[in-house]
Order: sequence, then structure tokens, then C-alpha cells
Amino acid sequence: MADVILVLNAGSSSIKYSAFDVHGGALALVSHGQAEGLFSSPRFTAFDAKGEKTGEHAWGDGATLEHAQAIAHIADFLRARGGGHHLVAVGHRVVHGGARFTKPVIATAEVLAELDRLTPLAPLHQPHNLKPIRIVAERNPAMPQVACFDTAFHATQPALAQAFALPDSVTKNGVRRYGFHGLSYEYIASALPDVAPDAAGGRTVVAHLGNGASLCAMLAGRSVASTMGFTAVDGLMMGTRCGNLDPGVILYLLDELGMNAREIEDLLYRGSGLLGVSGISGDMRALFASGDDRARFAIDLYVYRIARELGSMAAALHGLDAVVFTAGIGEHAAEIRRRVCEEAQWWGIELDARANESNGPRISAASSKVSAWVIPTNEELMIARHTLELIDPARVAPTEGASA
Amino acid sequence: MADVILVLNAGSSSIKYSAFDVHGGALALVSHGQAEGLFSSPRFTAFDAKGEKTGEHAWGDGATLEHAQAIAHIADFLRARGGGHHLVAVGHRVVHGGARFTKPVIATAEVLAELDRLTPLAPLHQPHNLKPIRIVAERNPAMPQVACFDTAFHATQPALAQAFALPDSVTKNGVRRYGFHGLSYEYIASALPDVAPDAAGGRTVVAHLGNGASLCAMLAGRSVASTMGFTAVDGLMMGTRCGNLDPGVILYLLDELGMNAREIEDLLYRGSGLLGVSGISGDMRALFASGDDRARFAIDLYVYRIARELGSMAAALHGLDAVVFTAGIGEHAAEIRRRVCEEAQWWGIELDARANESNGPRISAASSKVSAWVIPTNEELMIARHTLELIDPARVAPTEGASA
Repeated sequence: MADVILVLNAGSSSIKYSAFDVHGGALALVSHGQAEGLFSSPRFTAFDAKGEKTGEHAWGDGATLEHAQAIAHIADFLRARGGGHHLVAVGHRVVHGGARFTKPVIATAEVLAELDRLTPLAPLHQPHNLKPIRIVAERNPAMPQVACFDTAFHATQPALAQAFALPDSVTKNGVRRYGFHGLSYEYIASALPDVAPDAAGGRTVVAHLGNGASLCAMLAGRSVASTMGFTAVDGLMMGTRCGNLDPGVILYLLDELGMNAREIEDLLYRGSGLLGVSGISGDMRALFASGDDRARFAIDLYVYRIARELGSMAAALHGLDAVVFTAGIGEHAAEIRRRVCEEAQWWGIELDARANESNGPRISAASSKVSAWVIPTNEELMIARHTLELIDPARVAPTEGASA
Repeated sequence: MADVILVLNAGSSSIKYSAFDVHGGALALVSHGQAEGLFSSPRFTAFDAKGEKTGEHAWGDGATLEHAQAIAHIADFLRARGGGHHLVAVGHRVVHGGARFTKPVIATAEVLAELDRLTPLAPLHQPHNLKPIRIVAERNPAMPQVACFDTAFHATQPALAQAFALPDSVTKNGVRRYGFHGLSYEYIASALPDVAPDAAGGRTVVAHLGNGASLCAMLAGRSVASTMGFTAVDGLMMGTRCGNLDPGVILYLLDELGMNAREIEDLLYRGSGLLGVSGISGDMRALFASGDDRARFAIDLYVYRIARELGSMAAALHGLDAVVFTAGIGEHAAEIRRRVCEEAQWWGIELDARANESNGPRISAASSKVSAWVIPTNEELMIARHTLELIDPARVAPTEGASA
């Protein structure tokens, strides 16, 4: 019977899961999937490590599946399929660790209370991230749970990179640049020594280009700056988020367009970015498929903004040795990578067009002064690793464990 | 009798003026000064071209001097001192030209009406800039007046540099990056061919570091990007303005700190920047004089933010050939220039310490890959030049004009 670590990533209306077999110190994905549309049209889908669908269920339009029910469904599914999995711990993605939690932590009641207090810093995500921890603790108080933070990797940034030019009366509330996508960047940093040793030790900018998008400036694998700041709406243009915006625009929206905070939030988080600029879609694939001028302009702006922020990241690093692309668009949109690298050619990036078309890992020419890479990210594995590190080793059987 | 062009720069509670003699096509400053504290403690001060005080007057605490009265006082002063100046035209600094006015323009009634409509884009400045035009037109309808815009120089920027990643429903109202300090940048661009021919033709970043502060990326003297955007609060950290800020911070201020739009505006424009971060002063000289850790941190952040944005500007230019410092801090704070150049050393800037201490003009070593310069700006002269270009040449006597 295999020991299993379950990784949960919960949002307002979905819960993603991954289950990893623990073989001694190694972790092997055995199942992953999600329950989504919890409050509109709940459905569950599961896949094995090869991506083959191994389970699905739909509750129908108009049905409601509470988070607790969704987690129960995931647990039941794993128990039924696993033929005797022994769940040794649950790891959770938590968006915000604030100033205190700069590393993963066992989610005790005291820690949870502290994480609750960070909700004002990430009101759209933090409560949903914490909910499953409480649900599991209620069902199984002895189950070790580990909270892993999207902010933690950026704790190494110098104070200057974290500061806004705001007075203490505001910043004392925790208003500073935190940076996000930290679990993704941490995974990339962990993969670099094997994949790209030069990038691992050098001045490297990692471009996490998914639904959310940000850049991280890494010096020898440690974050020194990021385009995301206090929230996940700043920096690069994203699928539906605006990225960098003159703060005066918000005053204009309040004063002149008569919008309120919720309408502005909706605009900046869900009505901007690729979707807002194109008026067509927030999905890069749809924009490539469209012949519309606005789709073209949205893609142009997406690339331009990456190129501009790349310059700012390089300034934080005092130079540039390598660029790494990851996450959905970063891993699969060769055209975006090609255009970013062409915009950045003057830095000394020479693209290997064929390697880029086949998604790397190395996509720069051998003679390229700055190397460029594609490395698939794996936030879930990163969470599983942290979870395994933090739990009592006795919970994991070195060879054969007993059923719980 | 000399022909004179009067340049006015009006704010909410002050009017700055400069008077230029027109000798054929040349312009020579003859007097400059200001009426300030209009609604608290009005006072007038005038200087000649050498900076010697030539006039002053105070109305006393609690007195009120309307803009019209202040302009009348300036005109009376010039008339009395000038011994028969012939005022041929008035040039005005107007912060916002919107999308239409990409060049200086004769301020007809139709133009004024159009400029009024831009007030929502710059509510704190535009009405005050326009007021003197109306005052002069009322007193002297035949007097040619020219409006010169702080935005106009940036009209050459590519659409990608001007765009926010917002939907058309917002951007159609004129919400885009305009850039400001345009008259300063235009003056610098006009001075470069004489002072620094290589910078004139190359990829040059001009740092306008005054009370307000911004960078302009110039390609062969034309603006391709700027750190200021929709308003004059974005980009670099300034004396009391925050510069670049995560838009999510504004939502936090609204939602969690319960601030309203006016309080936020006050915070971002008047309570942030050097003043907000140091808690001591918005004046760089006061911070240098202070031994306080917060003053040191504020200066560090000021320099760091310039270095980061310099990277973004260089990315817009696809490289960097020269850096030019101008405006109050840029022209006089050798220590700030030294630190910015040291932060930017990796670009290939080698500072000539002695030349820097003596304020240039060239402050980089002969062997420096990227050259660095100090060039005093002169927005008033730029306005006078534009004004002279636009008015009927017959108004200016080629040798000796008749009194009006």
C-alpha cells in the first residue's frame, strides 16, 4: 500500500487536486484533476499521471457542491481508485503568507488564525485557500496539513524591491510588493541546476505566462524582483487582468466614470488584459486564431509589455544571462516566445527557431550571449515536496506502510 | 522699443512668468518671476536674466489675489520696468493636449472649448492652465496667445507605448499613457545636437528630476516611451508623489482603509514619494542633510526606482547610448546622479567624478560606452519659441517696431 500526499489548490468555485505516491523520498504523481463550477454546474474530472481520464462526474446545471462535499468526493474517488492508498498529509496552495510566513508551515489552528488576518491583502483568494484546510482538519484532526505560499519565494527580495513610495501610515498595514507565482518560480529554480546550470547560477528572468502572468528576476536562483506586487493584478498584461496601470486611472474611474470599487475590481481583474484589449477573448489561442486587428493589437501589447518589464527586471539584476519561459503560454506558445526573444534580441538573445518550435528545453542558439529556455512548471510537485519535508518522517513508511 | 513674448505657467495658487525680448528670430530672457500663495499670502517676486531680484510685493497673510489680478500685476510690472516693451504674444504652458493637440496651437475660442473638455484627464491642472488664456483674451482680444502642451512631445510614441491593457469602453474616453514634461524633453532634444551630438542621434534616456520626475526614452530625439502615463503621478518616485503603484493598492485603500477618492488623491499626490517614505521632507536637500535612516531609505528608493525604470526605457529603445539629467535634482544633485550612474554601471556608464561634481555638461568618462550628461532644461524658452513660430511675423518688428 502506497503512502500518498494530497495537494489541494482551492479557488472560489473550484478545487484542483494532485495525489503523489511517496516512495522513500521520491514523489510520483498518481492522479490529478478537479472539481469545478461548484455553485453553477458542478463537475469532477480526474486523470492519471499520463493524462488519461480516469474518472468524471457531473451534478447538473443549477446544482450546488460545497467545498466540503467536493473534497469528500475527491477523497472518496482516490480511496476507491487507489486500492488502499494511505494518505499521510495534505499540502495546500495559499496565495498569501504576508510578512511572517516566508516558508511553508504546518497549518496549526494558530497559523490558520494568522492567515485569516491576511485576508484583506488578498480578499479574492485567501479565504478560499484556507477553507479546505479547515474542512480537512474537521474531518481528520490528526492529518498533518502544510500551507505553501505564493508569496514566500519572494521573501529574499531586497527591501527596495518590496517598497512602494507610500507613507508608513499605509505601509504598516502590509502594503508592499510581495510578488506571486512563488511556487512556480521555486520549482523552476529547483529545476535549473539540472536543465540549465548557467541560468541556475546567473542573472535569470523567469517568465511565468499562464492565465496570470509575471516575471521574476532571479540572482543565483533567489528572487530579487518581480513584476507582480501587492496583488496579482500588477505588472504584465494577462488573460483578463490589466497589469501595470497608472494609479491616476483609478481616480478617473471613480471620479469621472462614476464606478465603485467592485466595478473597478471587476474591470481590472476580469475585463482587461487580452480579453479587454481584443474585445474577443482572454485566451491566447483564440486570439491567434482570430484575424481581427484588435486581436493582433492585444498580442502585440502582450509581447511589448513583457519586453518592457524584462528591461526593468534586468536592471534589478544588473544584467541578463538567461530567460526561462514557463506556464501555459510560456510552455506552449512558441510564437509568443519567438516574438519576446526577437524584441529582446538586442540583449544578446539569439533564438534557435527549430528548438523553439519543439518547445525546448533550450531555445537559444549555441552562440547566444543570453540563453533562453522552456521549462514546464510544477507547482503541485513543489507543494508535495514541501509537505513531505515538514511532516514527521515516521508517518511515511520507508518501504511498506500500514493502512490508516 | 523691444518686442516681448510673455510666457505664463499658471497653477491653482501661483502664476510663473518669463518675458523674452525678440530680436529678429532670437529670444533673450529679460525678466522672470512669479505670483504665488494667491489665496493664502499672495506675494510677487521678479528677477532679471542674471537672477538679480528686480521687484517684489506682498499682499499680506489672509489676503486674496485672483488670477486676473496677479496677471495684471505682472503686466503692470513689466510695463513699468520695460520702458516701453511691446508685448507681441503670450505663450502658455497647458498640461494636457489630449489626443488632438500634438503641437502648440493658437488658443482660439474653439481651441479653448476643446481644451476645457480635457479637464477630466487633468482636473488638478488643466482649469488653472486655461484660466490665464481667458483673462488675457478678455483684456486684449487681439493679443495672439499660444497654448503649448506637456503631452505633445510624446505624440510620436508608438501606440503600444501609449496603451493600457484596458477595454475600449474605458480607453475611448482618452484613458491612455500620454506622458508629461514634454516641453522640458523637447527643449533637451533641441539642445542635444549642440551639446551631445551622439546622444541627439542615438538611444537616449532623459531623466527630468524635479518636483515631478519622469524619464523619457528618445530615439534620435523623438519620444518613444515615458514613465509618466495617464497622469503625472505614475512612474518614478517624486517629492510627494508615489510613482508606480499596484492598482490593487487603490482597491485596498478604498475597501480596507475606508478612504475616499479625494483622500487617496491627496495621499498619492501630496503625501507619498520622498516625503511619505522619509516622513521628513519631500525636498532632496533636506533628506541629504538629515541623518535619519528613513531619509536614507527614501533616497535609496528614489535611486532604485530610477534604475529600474531606466531598464524599461532602454527596452523601449532596444539599447542605451546616453543618459541626460535635467531639472532641479537632475541639474544640481551630483550625489543622485553619481548613484544612478553607479546603479547603471553595468549598462556601460563610467562616471567622471570630477565632471559630475561640477555639473557637467558631460559627466561620463571619455571611455564610457554609454555617455552621461547634465543639461539644464528651459521649458519657458521652448514655449517662447513655439509662440514666436506661430504668430503672424508682421507682429514682430524686424529691427525697430512701433509702440502698441
